[in-house]
Amino acid sequence: MTTASATLDDDRLDETFAALANSTRRAILARLAEGEASVNDLAAPFDMKLPAISKHIKVLEHAGLITRGRRAQFRPCTIDAAPLAEVASWAQQYRHIWDDRFDRMDDYVRSLQNTQHTKDGKTND
Amino acid sequence: MTTASATLDDDRLDETFAALANSTRRAILARLAEGEASVNDLAAPFDMKLPAISKHIKVLEHAGLITRGRRAQFRPCTIDAAPLAEVASWAQQYRHIWDDRFDRMDDYVRSLQNTQHTKDGKTND
Repeated sequence: MTTASATLDDDRLDETFAALANSTRRAILARLAEGEASVNDLAAPFDMKLPAISKHIKVLEHAGLITRGRRAQFRPCTIDAAPLAEVASWAQQYRHIWDDRFDRMDDYVRSLQNTQHTKDGKTND
Repeated sequence: MTTASATLDDDRLDETFAALANSTRRAILARLAEGEASVNDLAAPFDMKLPAISKHIKVLEHAGLITRGRRAQFRPCTIDAAPLAEVASWAQQYRHIWDDRFDRMDDYVRSLQNTQHTKDGKTND
């Protein structure tokens, strides 16, 4: 059971990350974060034909990052941030590593500053 | 300048997300979070030939997610979490959307519980 659900999670993360690996699709999500929009609204800021935008929207929809309304013709797109919460939580598990790195950089910068102070004949009290 | 740097950021995020869209590569990162490892160490838990693992390592290295040591033969892999910090920070910008959604779910569950209590002849004081 655990393995099956781990595989499902893995498949979903594969799909989410693949959907996010495109700047047009990320720009579409950024636009939808401001509110629902039609495919025409979404196409407007891009120098792209409707079929190209529709393809990006289908990838986002398939990854569960957007949902489409049921109103005929208009069918507005709405962002669904649940997969983004999963991405954030997945990345956060490595926080201790980047925190450690930033701490080491801080220590390094401070040691450089101390060396400079000593050279200038100043001390830190 | 801003546009050029925005494009660079976009290209880097494209590459990071594409590198993360594979469960073997995410498993390699999870292993490296515990400490540096050789390609042989990394290949061990997977039912994969060395060239296949090397290919995944190259993708991760190209995306800046791992660095390789200089020691001949061994050349250990080390995780670099900086791109993961960018992914976390990119996803966090949508936090208000998933927070709103969880708040609405909370409200909904609470309203269901209240209805149930009223049906059972109980009140919430």
